[in-house]
Amino acid sequence: MKTRITELLGIRYPIIQGGMVQISTPELAAAVSNAGGLGQLTCTTGKKDTQQLRENIAKTRELTDKPFAVNVPLIMHDAEKFIEVALAEKVDVITTSAGNPAKFTAYIKKHGVKVCHVVPSVKLGKKAEAAGVDFIVAEGFEAGGHNAYDDVTTMTLIPQITAAVDLPVVAAGGIADARGFVAAFVLGAEGVQMGTRFIMSKECLAHEKFKEAIAMATDTGTVITGRMFGPTRVLKNKLSADILSWENQCMPTEKILELIGSGRSENALVKGDVEEGSAMCGQIAGLINSVATVQEIIESIAGQALSVLEQSKQLLGR
Amino acid sequence: MKTRITELLGIRYPIIQGGMVQISTPELAAAVSNAGGLGQLTCTTGKKDTQQLRENIAKTRELTDKPFAVNVPLIMHDAEKFIEVALAEKVDVITTSAGNPAKFTAYIKKHGVKVCHVVPSVKLGKKAEAAGVDFIVAEGFEAGGHNAYDDVTTMTLIPQITAAVDLPVVAAGGIADARGFVAAFVLGAEGVQMGTRFIMSKECLAHEKFKEAIAMATDTGTVITGRMFGPTRVLKNKLSADILSWENQCMPTEKILELIGSGRSENALVKGDVEEGSAMCGQIAGLINSVATVQEIIESIAGQALSVLEQSKQLLGR
Repeated sequence: MKTRITELLGIRYPIIQGGMVQISTPELAAAVSNAGGLGQLTCTTGKKDTQQLRENIAKTRELTDKPFAVNVPLIMHDAEKFIEVALAEKVDVITTSAGNPAKFTAYIKKHGVKVCHVVPSVKLGKKAEAAGVDFIVAEGFEAGGHNAYDDVTTMTLIPQITAAVDLPVVAAGGIADARGFVAAFVLGAEGVQMGTRFIMSKECLAHEKFKEAIAMATDTGTVITGRMFGPTRVLKNKLSADILSWENQCMPTEKILELIGSGRSENALVKGDVEEGSAMCGQIAGLINSVATVQEIIESIAGQALSVLEQSKQLLGR
Repeated sequence: MKTRITELLGIRYPIIQGGMVQISTPELAAAVSNAGGLGQLTCTTGKKDTQQLRENIAKTRELTDKPFAVNVPLIMHDAEKFIEVALAEKVDVITTSAGNPAKFTAYIKKHGVKVCHVVPSVKLGKKAEAAGVDFIVAEGFEAGGHNAYDDVTTMTLIPQITAAVDLPVVAAGGIADARGFVAAFVLGAEGVQMGTRFIMSKECLAHEKFKEAIAMATDTGTVITGRMFGPTRVLKNKLSADILSWENQCMPTEKILELIGSGRSENALVKGDVEEGSAMCGQIAGLINSVATVQEIIESIAGQALSVLEQSKQLLGR
């Protein structure tokens, strides 16, 4: 496989592990990079401070000599400090999200580090391109965790954004197997980013109960909460039902945020409270029924891609 | 192209024209069937009564000798009467939606007419299969007009539903060009249904102002209104902003429905009031910038399918 993404990043397979709150650990990121994809750390794992990120980068380096990325949500008040750490530690790629790509892109590039911005729409894709990023992750409404206010799905976003920008585009949201992987390419992408599929890996340190809940989820098993104050896709559970009920009663946002409190995602993802925690994952959870090694996940997708294409050709090719 | 859908329906291309409120006229349905797809009338065009449907079927027969379908939303209180008309007029296919497929499927099949049920989830797909339908239209959250309460997108729905049922599945929602068409096949479908793309045809009698509004729409140009009482995807306009504002104020549903009143979709689609009418269309509106003939639309998709596959193979095949 050879796309602008594999060339740019120096990776074997155009498969990126999404930056996931709490559980994008060195073990997972290194496993993805070692298997030929691009692993990714976040600023939001463990103690969520710069020292933790520094340690996580160092540990990842111990576990792999392949490229990996660090995701920095620009909405974090100390985003700049995390970027400084990632630059000082000379990571290969920084992906920014949830903010203005114009702010740090040139600065990051000046350090010789590749930059990606995560966008949910054509307009923001163009803005990222104008800011000078090297590539774009275009994330559809199917994606887990923090989501955009608009609801543009992967199926409609990818053909439109790839037509609107010249940069290579990585599709995110709703992809967990070879079918989704190939579909992303057919729609115009040159790579995919997956989160939920990698949660369901042996190397991911997410709590067993959270993994079990994903394995049990059906196609309708996730829902968007916080539609008015911060859309987030989570597994349906007691917390999501409560939040939706508060929203539907028009409870003031401050009150809802107070009732939610803090630590909810850690409670679900790390501590296994899948009923009262914020069990962030993508809508494609319904397709994923078991845990596999990162290498099995990546090899299975890459190995089946051509036969998926061939099956479609049989139907379409006469 | 040869799939179970083309074989079952006796059509050249596995492309179905969605049943669209107000504008699924004989002219459009016949044009689609004549171009090798499956055209479709609805009970909700014109006077919305059985006499209108009878006339529309007769007129369609004058315009084509190819198979076509009639869509009957089972939520209509006189659904049974419409089905009787379609059976008496010996249409080729009846598609049912928005209701329980167990109710009429066996009865329709007894008359030698093929039955399809439109579903938004795996569970309802299995239910339709158990009811004995001949095929399923699986419609994602991207789709225009009346939508499901859950938000399962085409990208996640198609691989899951095709894995769960043995019947052939037609993908609907978010498809308007060869990329979307091929992606649907890659995801497991054996045909596609398109609505918005066919609104943007010369043969569709939708108002010019409505077509202009679709041509101008961007990827974020549609929105779901009626989330609590009847989700409907429409172009963003004054009416949708008003409804969302009423919903966000927790105005009682009865009051919102009273403010909306009746005739809003006719106002937008037929009379061209794209600001205060209910301008129902799919999220893929952003991809569609111009009007073409039905034949151009279908031939363009069918003609480009193989080259879209080939482009993906170039990236994935080394």
